Amino acid sequence: MFAVTVRDHMMVAHSFQGEVFGPAQRLHGATYVVDATFRRAALDSDNVVVDIGRATDALRVVLGELNYRNLDDDAAFAGVNTSTEMLAKVVADRLAERISQGELGESARGIASVAVTLHESHVAWASYERLL
Amino acid sequence: MFAVTVRDHMMVAHSFQGEVFGPAQRLHGATYVVDATFRRAALDSDNVVVDIGRATDALRVVLGELNYRNLDDDAAFAGVNTSTEMLAKVVADRLAERISQGELGESARGIASVAVTLHESHVAWASYERLL
Amino acid sequence: MFAVTVRDHMMVAHSFQGEVFGPAQRLHGATYVVDATFRRAALDSDNVVVDIGRATDALRVVLGELNYRNLDDDAAFAGVNTSTEMLAKVVADRLAERISQGELGESARGIASVAVTLHESHVAWASYERLL
Amino acid sequence: MFAVTVRDHMMVAHSFQGEVFGPAQRLHGATYVVDATFRRAALDSDNVVVDIGRATDALRVVLGELNYRNLDDDAAFAGVNTSTEMLAKVVADRLAERISQGELGESARGIASVAVTLHESHVAWASYERLL
Amino acid sequence: MFAVTVRDHMMVAHSFQGEVFGPAQRLHGATYVVDATFRRAALDSDNVVVDIGRATDALRVVLGELNYRNLDDDAAFAGVNTSTEMLAKVVADRLAERISQGELGESARGIASVAVTLHESHVAWASYERLL
Amino acid sequence: MFAVTVRDHMMVAHSFQGEVFGPAQRLHGATYVVDATFRRAALDSDNVVVDIGRATDALRVVLGELNYRNLDDDAAFAGVNTSTEMLAKVVADRLAERISQGELGESARGIASVAVTLHESHVAWASYERLL
Repeated sequence: MFAVTVRDHMMVAHSFQGEVFGPAQRLHGATYVVDATFRRAALDSDNVVVDIGRATDALRVVLGELNYRNLDDDAAFAGVNTSTEMLAKVVADRLAERISQGELGESARGIASVAVTLHESHVAWASYERLL
Repeated sequence: MFAVTVRDHMMVAHSFQGEVFGPAQRLHGATYVVDATFRRAALDSDNVVVDIGRATDALRVVLGELNYRNLDDDAAFAGVNTSTEMLAKVVADRLAERISQGELGESARGIASVAVTLHESHVAWASYERLL
Repeated sequence: MFAVTVRDHMMVAHSFQGEVFGPAQRLHGATYVVDATFRRAALDSDNVVVDIGRATDALRVVLGELNYRNLDDDAAFAGVNTSTEMLAKVVADRLAERISQGELGESARGIASVAVTLHESHVAWASYERLL
Repeated sequence: MFAVTVRDHMMVAHSFQGEVFGPAQRLHGATYVVDATFRRAALDSDNVVVDIGRATDALRVVLGELNYRNLDDDAAFAGVNTSTEMLAKVVADRLAERISQGELGESARGIASVAVTLHESHVAWASYERLL
Repeated sequence: MFAVTVRDHMMVAHSFQGEVFGPAQRLHGATYVVDATFRRAALDSDNVVVDIGRATDALRVVLGELNYRNLDDDAAFAGVNTSTEMLAKVVADRLAERISQGELGESARGIASVAVTLHESHVAWASYERLL
Repeated sequence: MFAVTVRDHMMVAHSFQGEVFGPAQRLHGATYVVDATFRRAALDSDNVVVDIGRATDALRVVLGELNYRNLDDDAAFAGVNTSTEMLAKVVADRLAERISQGELGESARGIASVAVTLHESHVAWASYERLL
């Protein structure tokens, strides 16, 4: 199995609902350093998993929809906690949709799965992996 | 599949038995930077894999039983080599026990597996992953 | 010259005033991974720059005053841009005050300077260094 | 499942064929920081996955065959793009061959799989994993 | 003293002249992860050392003149060893020229010094710092 | 001013004297990831600060005198606390002596200063810098 990972980041504000979150119930923020990993069993005719330039661009566009925003004001997240693990799923799902739409190139349709890791600090991170 | 990882560290002394270990047969030591990863298929009602505060506390307690000690003097390790991979299993098993006892919260009982990585230097690390 | 550095982090929301900040004028957030460095020409009688436990505690307390907050609501920052470099100065100044008050121990009064670095992402960080 | 990883690096020149590679079609170069991971279900009689010294030596030898070279001049890669993912497979396959030849020791024959990750920068890396 | 650092990278081929370089006399390559640090005694009216967006853009442009190239073919380096430390000076000098030309903004003229670090691997890096 | 840094590591056991050290008064251990930085105002005739191979070898030899040992048994440290900052000075002084003896090459006599940083974990490190 082959994999390629590209890294970018986003900086957002948000707050959490639920006593378990303690002081994180207050409006605060996070830098998420985001790793997007694409896996497939065999390389394409260019000998790559995915065009790394297109993968990087796709990740930048997906993060751009969230970057420099207060997620509490985003209708897509109304009534849900935008936890690190949940945001990892949002990014993975949006990347998967772009792949299926052909935005990462025709050969990228051979990608088997996408995994996204959001690093919220030097001591905590969360991931979500899904099939395509 | 979702995952959350928290990081902490411990500083221990130990020695190894067996010619294969060369100079590491002498009493020496290591800082282990420890990553504990918790995985589950679906998030709980708070939209998280596990309460990250409780996960961090549990890891600190487990590492506290080993930290600032000479492992050669720990009865739990009599007659065994406390290799990095073996210590990864010790930490994972002790975290698993705490999860099963409910110490990470009721919803943490939904965690499917625990993986622990011990980084012994910038050029070597070892892991152990187990189901719950 | 000797130096000791300890690392911690904080997660805040804020916004910036000024066209130069572009989309960062919107309410957003950041994780700051914070390194506090203490320097002195000679070690104290325990052979250290500062008790690393006390230094870690002092940094945690100083960051705790800012952590999990919207800095736009903090009266201390009314009318000023809480840029990464400005926040580095805030943390350094507050650590310096604690040193001068003896909170890091009597021998810590021998510390010559404090430098604070705030990492806002994997590709950008800012620092401030001052004498005591 | 247990795993041990060792890290080393190599510095090579190469060029790519195909419009998708854009400016990387020109002769350029890369430092690959290489992580080799060995996995097995149970530890050997010394309580390790593999003798870490021998694993480190094997990785150094395999990388030494590529290091400080222009891969465009290596007959082994005639007519193929030496992409990061393809080079990860080359390193993994060569390590696998050394394991099967007993060069990592008799007990290393119990290793179940090898995974190799090549980091080409702070924002991109690729991996290949195979069974033995 | 304040400082701001931004990070980018470049991937080049080159060779060295001189027996001291051993196998690095052959044509090979490197990824340089490049940190550019800007220092000044006081912040500007926006409370920053430099507009981080403009600093990032300037670094990208400077690295773009070298990226994906064989430095042995660059007339600017005829007859000189493009060592990591020498390339750090090239990047710093070119950034300094852009600052003096006002490309990082008027207030950037208050920058006192530029330091550039090139990381050639996880175990070696080189720097050059100069006044403006 | 130019600088070159090389990285290696050592794994030692030791204990501390003094109540301030708390549980670290017990015999424990540490991995020190060690960065040795060499600075000079002008490059030598090969366009380098120091032959990076020789610098790496010198660091390995100096760390080899301490590696895989219990520092409490080393006569050189009788009656002193082998704190991270004190060990940074030991490594820097021993490197300085090797430079003055010509072991890093004739041109290395032009090195102006040596700085050594010992990383004891992901959240703490100490340095010592001295002139030659």
